[in-house]
Amino acid sequence: MRTVTQNAELALLLEVTGTPKPGNVDRDREYDDLRFEHFLAGAVGARPGLELAVAGDPLGSAFEQAIEGMAEQQGGNTQFGALLLLTPLVATAASGELTPERADGIVRKTTVDDAAAFYRSFEHVDVAVDDPPDGLEPLDVRRGSDAIPTLRERGLTLEAIMRRSADIDDIAAEWVGGFERAFDAADRIQATEGPVPDRASTVFIELLAERPDTFIVTRQDSETATDVMHRARAVLDGETDADELAETFMQRDINPGTTADLVAGGLFVALERGLDV
Amino acid sequence: MRTVTQNAELALLLEVTGTPKPGNVDRDREYDDLRFEHFLAGAVGARPGLELAVAGDPLGSAFEQAIEGMAEQQGGNTQFGALLLLTPLVATAASGELTPERADGIVRKTTVDDAAAFYRSFEHVDVAVDDPPDGLEPLDVRRGSDAIPTLRERGLTLEAIMRRSADIDDIAAEWVGGFERAFDAADRIQATEGPVPDRASTVFIELLAERPDTFIVTRQDSETATDVMHRARAVLDGETDADELAETFMQRDINPGTTADLVAGGLFVALERGLDV
Repeated sequence: MRTVTQNAELALLLEVTGTPKPGNVDRDREYDDLRFEHFLAGAVGARPGLELAVAGDPLGSAFEQAIEGMAEQQGGNTQFGALLLLTPLVATAASGELTPERADGIVRKTTVDDAAAFYRSFEHVDVAVDDPPDGLEPLDVRRGSDAIPTLRERGLTLEAIMRRSADIDDIAAEWVGGFERAFDAADRIQATEGPVPDRASTVFIELLAERPDTFIVTRQDSETATDVMHRARAVLDGETDADELAETFMQRDINPGTTADLVAGGLFVALERGLDV
Repeated sequence: MRTVTQNAELALLLEVTGTPKPGNVDRDREYDDLRFEHFLAGAVGARPGLELAVAGDPLGSAFEQAIEGMAEQQGGNTQFGALLLLTPLVATAASGELTPERADGIVRKTTVDDAAAFYRSFEHVDVAVDDPPDGLEPLDVRRGSDAIPTLRERGLTLEAIMRRSADIDDIAAEWVGGFERAFDAADRIQATEGPVPDRASTVFIELLAERPDTFIVTRQDSETATDVMHRARAVLDGETDADELAETFMQRDINPGTTADLVAGGLFVALERGLDV
């Protein structure tokens, strides 16, 4: 039996292996400076942080440790969003049944210290984020630990931080919405057959066709994300070839990272439920 | 800094990622029943056993645990030879400087109990092995733990077992020869530049061109292994395309597994010496 940490690590590895996954690094496609091997090293490096989540350490510091370990490779940000999604799911699975209700309970228990650790984690790796709305500059995540006094003044827990970002970041939306799409992705992965990376790739395109990817909204804009959603739909409808779409997205540096993170979360839930590899 | 166990796990992952690696599973090629994902799960599953080697547990039981964990996937034997090579190297790196002399010292300290655990490990997974020579049937590894009374009667340590197999198995030859080819592979990997899996693939073909792969000798015969060696040489000489060779070998089910194991060992040594990923 694989442990919870092993399932989390395997989920990260299976996610990056699935191909085609238009716009993201996979085993057939990579960028010159962000390659498949960086995702392997990121998954291996994240493990000690995930172990902390299993051991019942506070979510924030477990996440920060996972990011610090993930960042020990030359590719930069490989799995920040995936680990943000996985950390509470790992803590949930390690402490009892892995259900949306229990995961929600774990999110609700987060503290201001967890929020502080989350902000510190941005000091370990360069993550693409949007400018904050007017008046929220003191809480810009790019300020890292400089934002911590403001967090403490306002008594903001990590859950509260996620709630503020839920409308612009679908990983934050998962945190405050019972991880609905990750559990849904797990259902879909389990409902299909064949090699697991192929199933992950199919579910990736399905999720991409359903909602604009918030990482694309951040790095490009909302119009691009909506266009990507329609193009993914065209793949499902048999009107576009997924491999061609992958080439187009890579050329335009369009990277549906949030959708990949959701698939990693879905793979973890499916593995915990007994998905065979 | 990655730990010794993390470097061992990453070495396994980088090894299987390198392509082309004619005849072996890599990120571009797989068999229907032995796929890339099985190697990912094998590497993740082996970790607790490698941790035991780091903790200074006896080599035999660390190896047996690594194999038991590796085998928890549907593909069968993915990394038996690679783990047999890595376990003493991991124990060496965890306890001091990683040198051929120290690795040799660790091998010389193995006991009959280590040999017994090695035999038990064959009960966890189906490994291709040759019939034993006449008179050595009681020590056929396929007998698993049934061979243990004979080991005890004859006082055979794991080193002694490896010494008996060194002329027909190049992993056993590494054990009793100061891990010469693994350290040599590390030198070559470190002497080149570029993406690490590409360097691993190049070194794989170089090693394959130098000696008949003993796993091919076991599964097919010595003539086939010699022919494979010449064909690998032709790739280095620019007379054959490596990708074409990969297709030919896969069709003929020719699998230079020992050479892949040596590359995994080389990657581990290189990572321990600071190879950047």
